[in-house]
Amino acid sequence: MQKVRFTISISLDGFVAGPDQSVANPLGVGGTRLHEWAFALEVFRASHGLSGGEVNPSTSVVNESLANVGVTLMGRNMFGGHPGPWNTARPWNGWWGTNPPFHHPVIVLTHYGREPLVLEGGTVFTFVTGGIHEALEQARKAAGEKDVALAGGASAGRQYLKAGLVDEMDLNLVPTLLGSGERLFEGVGDDLHGLELIRTVASPAVTHLKFARRS
Amino acid sequence: MQKVRFTISISLDGFVAGPDQSVANPLGVGGTRLHEWAFALEVFRASHGLSGGEVNPSTSVVNESLANVGVTLMGRNMFGGHPGPWNTARPWNGWWGTNPPFHHPVIVLTHYGREPLVLEGGTVFTFVTGGIHEALEQARKAAGEKDVALAGGASAGRQYLKAGLVDEMDLNLVPTLLGSGERLFEGVGDDLHGLELIRTVASPAVTHLKFARRS
Repeated sequence: MQKVRFTISISLDGFVAGPDQSVANPLGVGGTRLHEWAFALEVFRASHGLSGGEVNPSTSVVNESLANVGVTLMGRNMFGGHPGPWNTARPWNGWWGTNPPFHHPVIVLTHYGREPLVLEGGTVFTFVTGGIHEALEQARKAAGEKDVALAGGASAGRQYLKAGLVDEMDLNLVPTLLGSGERLFEGVGDDLHGLELIRTVASPAVTHLKFARRS
Repeated sequence: MQKVRFTISISLDGFVAGPDQSVANPLGVGGTRLHEWAFALEVFRASHGLSGGEVNPSTSVVNESLANVGVTLMGRNMFGGHPGPWNTARPWNGWWGTNPPFHHPVIVLTHYGREPLVLEGGTVFTFVTGGIHEALEQARKAAGEKDVALAGGASAGRQYLKAGLVDEMDLNLVPTLLGSGERLFEGVGDDLHGLELIRTVASPAVTHLKFARRS
């Protein structure tokens, strides 16, 4: 059955991005510290065309997260942090470069429509303005038989969590403090909306916590 | 060498107590959910004179946390949440009952002095008003050759963390959200003040993260 799988890296103090996100620093101040565990992995480097890197307990977790994904669903902030109407004269193509690492359709949840953005390597960004349910419906269709990878950021993730639409949540808990920035669970309330911890994988620089729906 | 070991249970969204702490509800609304994993353990029940209970990967973590402790150091809020001068006419003896589970000296960090409180089973609460350094000094002396267990709450834990005085930190990460309450790391800043993750133990209802000083 098709699943909605939300994967995100989070600090020990609950932040998924540092403060002052910008084009120069899309993850916010200190935010790259949430992803260093991944950058070091052979499986991550290979997916970006690089050789070398580590194999450790995170490897199987990353392989699992990449498997059976038909589409990626993300918020506007994760696409490119653009806070208002798109500038059609000088289009902003987001933070992901000319050849984004997705290589499949990407649905972007936004308040402002624009034409689909076709980039190299099979990544097509489609912008959906009808809210989280419509964006998910389009993502489900685009995914076909495969799963929907909900990639964040915090705001999009929170909205789907609160609506009870997340089937699996993979938190990569990084043992560091960011001190400020964007909190994943701000305003989500006092329950996990049907999810429970089903697996913990310990790796040297990160702890992988997998949640799934109660059966 | 004598160590300062800080142990505390924390929710996935970073809270170590729920909102609205009171005599009737010292852990705050929902706060008992942070400790249910421990209440279920045989080793915990035995330390409270009860039989039965589970043995699981948490057992060895709890045994380790109880071993070689000579003194417990805690904040005023953890002793009994008393916010002002003590009422000497009707003394408030804290949240721990007539026979507290410590069975050794307990140093309470407070702004208001009072005479030591001697309770059953070997627990003596001593109230220290000279600040975190003086309280720790007294705790070190009382501990003798053993370690100092820093038990919290959030405010006391934060102060010792920020001062770089914690040698080991054991976080019992409970996969639940409290939504509001007291955040452990609020205002601690963007680093762990010399601590790094050295061990992760996965248990069904809790993930134990052990931090120690970089060597």
